[in-house]
Amino acid sequence: MKVKHILYFLFLFHSFAYAQESLDFNAKKNISSPEVNGKTVTFRLFAPQAKTVKIQGNWMDSSPVDLQKGTDGVWSFSKADFTPDIYTYSFLVDGVKANDPNNAYQVRDVSSLMSMFLVAGPQSSSYEVQRVPHGSVTKRWYASIGLQEDRRLTVYTPPGYESNKGKYPVLYLLHGMGGDEEAWMTLGRASQILDNLIASGQAKPMIVVMPNGHTSNAAAPGESAKGFYKIDMMTPDIFTGDMETYFHEIISFTEKNYRVKSDAKDRAIAGLSMGGFHSLYISANQPKMFDYIGLFSPAILPPQNKQSPIYSDLDAKLDVQKNNGYKLYWIGIGKTDFLYQSVTDFRNKLDKNNFKYIYVESEGGHTWSNWRTYLNEFVPQLFK
Amino acid sequence: MKVKHILYFLFLFHSFAYAQESLDFNAKKNISSPEVNGKTVTFRLFAPQAKTVKIQGNWMDSSPVDLQKGTDGVWSFSKADFTPDIYTYSFLVDGVKANDPNNAYQVRDVSSLMSMFLVAGPQSSSYEVQRVPHGSVTKRWYASIGLQEDRRLTVYTPPGYESNKGKYPVLYLLHGMGGDEEAWMTLGRASQILDNLIASGQAKPMIVVMPNGHTSNAAAPGESAKGFYKIDMMTPDIFTGDMETYFHEIISFTEKNYRVKSDAKDRAIAGLSMGGFHSLYISANQPKMFDYIGLFSPAILPPQNKQSPIYSDLDAKLDVQKNNGYKLYWIGIGKTDFLYQSVTDFRNKLDKNNFKYIYVESEGGHTWSNWRTYLNEFVPQLFK
Repeated sequence: MKVKHILYFLFLFHSFAYAQESLDFNAKKNISSPEVNGKTVTFRLFAPQAKTVKIQGNWMDSSPVDLQKGTDGVWSFSKADFTPDIYTYSFLVDGVKANDPNNAYQVRDVSSLMSMFLVAGPQSSSYEVQRVPHGSVTKRWYASIGLQEDRRLTVYTPPGYESNKGKYPVLYLLHGMGGDEEAWMTLGRASQILDNLIASGQAKPMIVVMPNGHTSNAAAPGESAKGFYKIDMMTPDIFTGDMETYFHEIISFTEKNYRVKSDAKDRAIAGLSMGGFHSLYISANQPKMFDYIGLFSPAILPPQNKQSPIYSDLDAKLDVQKNNGYKLYWIGIGKTDFLYQSVTDFRNKLDKNNFKYIYVESEGGHTWSNWRTYLNEFVPQLFK
Repeated sequence: MKVKHILYFLFLFHSFAYAQESLDFNAKKNISSPEVNGKTVTFRLFAPQAKTVKIQGNWMDSSPVDLQKGTDGVWSFSKADFTPDIYTYSFLVDGVKANDPNNAYQVRDVSSLMSMFLVAGPQSSSYEVQRVPHGSVTKRWYASIGLQEDRRLTVYTPPGYESNKGKYPVLYLLHGMGGDEEAWMTLGRASQILDNLIASGQAKPMIVVMPNGHTSNAAAPGESAKGFYKIDMMTPDIFTGDMETYFHEIISFTEKNYRVKSDAKDRAIAGLSMGGFHSLYISANQPKMFDYIGLFSPAILPPQNKQSPIYSDLDAKLDVQKNNGYKLYWIGIGKTDFLYQSVTDFRNKLDKNNFKYIYVESEGGHTWSNWRTYLNEFVPQLFK
């Protein structure tokens, strides 16, 4: 680049920086953080007046850890030997949460925003955007007659869907209590996982439909007529039976609007936590609908609305499902998950009834790291 | 709700909260911030150890303003008489930038993340999600032969597009130097503006195509094979002529893949800042392509690559464009925009050549507030 070009850019940069709404060009010192160097990551924060700066990360079992202050007012902390994965963290500056102002990448989980980074390696390459054909991701609305409102869902269509003529199998992929129709794309990296598995021939091209599992919310926070309301996890719609009751609307919307195969052997349903609970009951109540079922750390807890016919006679329903036959019933849970015991109880019930399933027990707990891994393992087994 | 239901929720809430990756359930005191009460907004932060807490908002011309500390360790600041609009802000805690931990809504502008809120009123109702039919928004990739890579764009299709049979007009909508193919949806609220204008009959149903205007980036940060790189505004692709040269690929992709009308009277192009510059030169170089052109605070600056045929003979090209005819050439700029003089110079050139245009001079500067307003004014004038 010629000198005059460099000068030109400097001029532009300063003009635009001044004009941007970005408010913190002066408040942050432009340092490198997080600096990912192989499996070692260094975190830095410019905070000359702070008395303490700590970091809390999702790889830590412990309390927040102190950063060390340098003579230039930059605090820092390094950690080696990260397992390749996506990680989240926040700083605590004199007790106040502050995300890393030098890191533009954040994710929201429930009502919390956290800085994020990726440590590259074999285990995390499926979460990266690779130079492979990419599917399309659409935010779309369907009319729910049962819930009397338009509701939003996310649809992944595989590379080539628009130009091909053929029909595709469908995976319905459900989120947990803290999530919405965006969670599998943001925290779950579903489009990257699907793109990469399809490109390498490990998975069949498929459509993935990700609805919103909260029947009291039409869409993700900020994307519905509720506006920018304060997010509260205590939505009164958990385990009421409404999601299961009206799920057929999502299936018919999909089958009407996309070129999909509409028989059980080309339909899968899977979900994490609350979505695992939903997948269990949706498939048990419609025992001819899905040949593939995935329960990722499922929240198999006593249903709130016990009177609902959705939750009655589960044993008899599972018996019908078993006799109808299915190709895959997949259950995954982490060894330290707080739901471990309830999943063990459910497995005992299945064992007693000779209900066949694949069981994967992983390290760790109730985490997106596990759910990304489960999706990566589950999807290649579909529609074979 | 019965007591046992409430207890049940409390149990679930605490179990899941413990299990979430959300790291700051203890670090933040769960207070209401920002509290929007009509046109008065109160900001609060729990920071008992801090020596100073300031707020910097995009409504302020001044330096950051102090919050006052209460006896409970909660700092607060109120301001009345907000004009209805979307606003962004950050706190400064002992000099360190911290977004509001009680506000889950953030936007990214270039490399900065800011907390956001909306003050409701007539001027901002077009940015809100209303109970009207919603269009679909798709993130999709097209193959660029000229740039030798797959590139991402965002496509808005209006309500009913999927079930109707007819063809639609298209608006190509370009972002500025700090943006990408997501900026018009996040900061620009384009899908809400289009949904609301179409629902009220003020705008014709149309498709809106929002490409990435940086030819050195295939997609928004984090969405391309570059991974989670550190964002730098000084990309060496500004005003090189590449965006203009290869724009025909985006038009042919759109016309091949969507049911669109393909004549000048059903094509519009508009852009903000750098995208206004692009819109000027794309339309001037293809003078029979667009009947509607919108320049929103356009960055009409000396092109970097003066040798490019794209930038040569502008006067002659504008003359051809004038003689071909067009329906609308719309220019908007704020009175305090740092680009005001260059737009005045360009208007003088147009006036001298009897090149007709509509000119709107607004209050304020180089801001998303203006660009949302301009889009809201421009779109109803299209395809009449």
